[in-house]
Amino acid sequence: MSQPSPTMHRMTLDDAAVLARAVLIRQGFNAEQSQALTRAVIAGERDACHSHGLYRLLNCVSTLAAGKVVADAQPEVHDQAPGIVRVDAKGGFSQLAFEAGLPVLATKAREQGIAALAINHCVHFSALWIEVEAITELGLVGLACNPSHAWVAPAGGTRPLLGTNPLAFGWPRPDGQPPYLFDFATSAIARGDIELYRREQRPIPEGWGIDRHGQPSQDAAAVLDGALLTFGGHKGSALATMIELIAGPLIGDLTSAESLAHDDGAGGSPYHGELIIAMDPERFLGDTREHYMRRGEALFDAIIDQDARLPSQRRYAARERTRREGIHLPDHLYRELVELS
Amino acid sequence: MSQPSPTMHRMTLDDAAVLARAVLIRQGFNAEQSQALTRAVIAGERDACHSHGLYRLLNCVSTLAAGKVVADAQPEVHDQAPGIVRVDAKGGFSQLAFEAGLPVLATKAREQGIAALAINHCVHFSALWIEVEAITELGLVGLACNPSHAWVAPAGGTRPLLGTNPLAFGWPRPDGQPPYLFDFATSAIARGDIELYRREQRPIPEGWGIDRHGQPSQDAAAVLDGALLTFGGHKGSALATMIELIAGPLIGDLTSAESLAHDDGAGGSPYHGELIIAMDPERFLGDTREHYMRRGEALFDAIIDQDARLPSQRRYAARERTRREGIHLPDHLYRELVELS
Repeated sequence: MSQPSPTMHRMTLDDAAVLARAVLIRQGFNAEQSQALTRAVIAGERDACHSHGLYRLLNCVSTLAAGKVVADAQPEVHDQAPGIVRVDAKGGFSQLAFEAGLPVLATKAREQGIAALAINHCVHFSALWIEVEAITELGLVGLACNPSHAWVAPAGGTRPLLGTNPLAFGWPRPDGQPPYLFDFATSAIARGDIELYRREQRPIPEGWGIDRHGQPSQDAAAVLDGALLTFGGHKGSALATMIELIAGPLIGDLTSAESLAHDDGAGGSPYHGELIIAMDPERFLGDTREHYMRRGEALFDAIIDQDARLPSQRRYAARERTRREGIHLPDHLYRELVELS
Repeated sequence: MSQPSPTMHRMTLDDAAVLARAVLIRQGFNAEQSQALTRAVIAGERDACHSHGLYRLLNCVSTLAAGKVVADAQPEVHDQAPGIVRVDAKGGFSQLAFEAGLPVLATKAREQGIAALAINHCVHFSALWIEVEAITELGLVGLACNPSHAWVAPAGGTRPLLGTNPLAFGWPRPDGQPPYLFDFATSAIARGDIELYRREQRPIPEGWGIDRHGQPSQDAAAVLDGALLTFGGHKGSALATMIELIAGPLIGDLTSAESLAHDDGAGGSPYHGELIIAMDPERFLGDTREHYMRRGEALFDAIIDQDARLPSQRRYAARERTRREGIHLPDHLYRELVELS
């Protein structure tokens, strides 16, 4: 059992949720928005994804203070087509909009076999795995992606144009096992990681970015002033471009370049849309569902059997640990949140 | 204008199609199968994708001779759900099954907004860009993927398990422009490319593969005896695994490991399924379709403006060249095909 460092504050997840909600309400978010945001940051904290945990509350508060998010936005659900539900987030954070759309998405996926949820006009900092995992909990297969801000150059290019454009996928597993789930940025690395290298004045690895003249650079500051690169060369760049298109123009929302222009230098969270696709194994497979889902299990067994890891394993392990031990917040963050509550 | 080498046979696309069809019919394929296969190999040859061009006819013939494909398979179309069409290829090549399913997929996508086509029990050598391009020609957005044979190790693993699992995406463009389209293997490189290095006894680049003991290797023969790696490390591996799942168990068909086991050492084309998703911008966007598709064009302009290339540009250039000049077949291939015709 790991020991909390002396500068850490230990608390239960329930207490952390009470604190999170208190901060959000006190800072002006309405009850529904506060509840949805709390669920998201608690899930992040629970799984030791600290950058999407309670720490993010500071960002929610500063985004609101900067007038860049609507604190009492009421998402509007539109039945766009038999296989499409659109949710207009009305300038609020994406979480409540997702929660409003999810039941409709699930119903449509079960009726049609495959369905899409388009979230529009949301301020976005969500980890997509939270949403994709919620889809798998309904027995569905989920796929989610969104643009972000234009920080990434296309392969062969010299200037930022694409977002860090995450792609997440979830597959439900039997017997109460957590889903097969991945959630990765199509950039080589997160912008925040390069920021850490800059602060520590360490050179970044090759292949992460280019300077403002389009030249490969290992100088973190020069890359932050230039552009990140995608993972996997031209293939990652093609994927990132696909995400710009299907989670941008296809759903009537902004590309990463348009999102950054909309921010206009304020340094706020990206403002754009998100595309989520759900598929129902029951509709694809009928009576053979059980049989084929077991064959998916054989694939996971074969991965683990050669000592390769499934994605999210570290996160699920942290989740188990949190269940036993609660969470440990840095004291300074805890005090800051109490002050804001 | 490029000059044909003296050992090349020059012919028009129409003449090449006559030859291809004659070979297939003579070797025992029925008229519908021959027609669909001819369309596919002619599209490959036209775009200078020679490995998917007329050369593939030799593979079609040897697969048939080995008893690994049904020469007169009649695909069966099943209306699985409002958003899903299944086509049982009945052990034939995938091309005719795709052609049988495409009109139903398009109708469903236009009605539902999003729809899926699952092809089952097909022998597969198709380049997915051909299918995705056919979807864009109907004004739809297309996404396609399939497993293959288990030649690729998962990230962190030591043994082949995943296929080279291609992923293709197409986005329709206005004004008669060819689509934005990519089609890439999720392996670091095609197996055939490593075979070329082996023949030339050249070392392969780092990161392409591992030997049978799971150790990184630049020895082509050792990697062919071991496993390829995915592109983009654990992210590419996660994508390849997703493709195993959604184009395998989800559609009631084989994974790459199951496909290789089914081949049982015969060296035939993979036998498995394929998942294709189509989305209709009209249903997502209604009256704003034109406006937002133009915003997609702005993204392409911004890519080209910084001297980055769009995927498929080389293929489209070859297509233009073929229109002017016809194709050039190696004499020995031409003679072999004439002999088989």
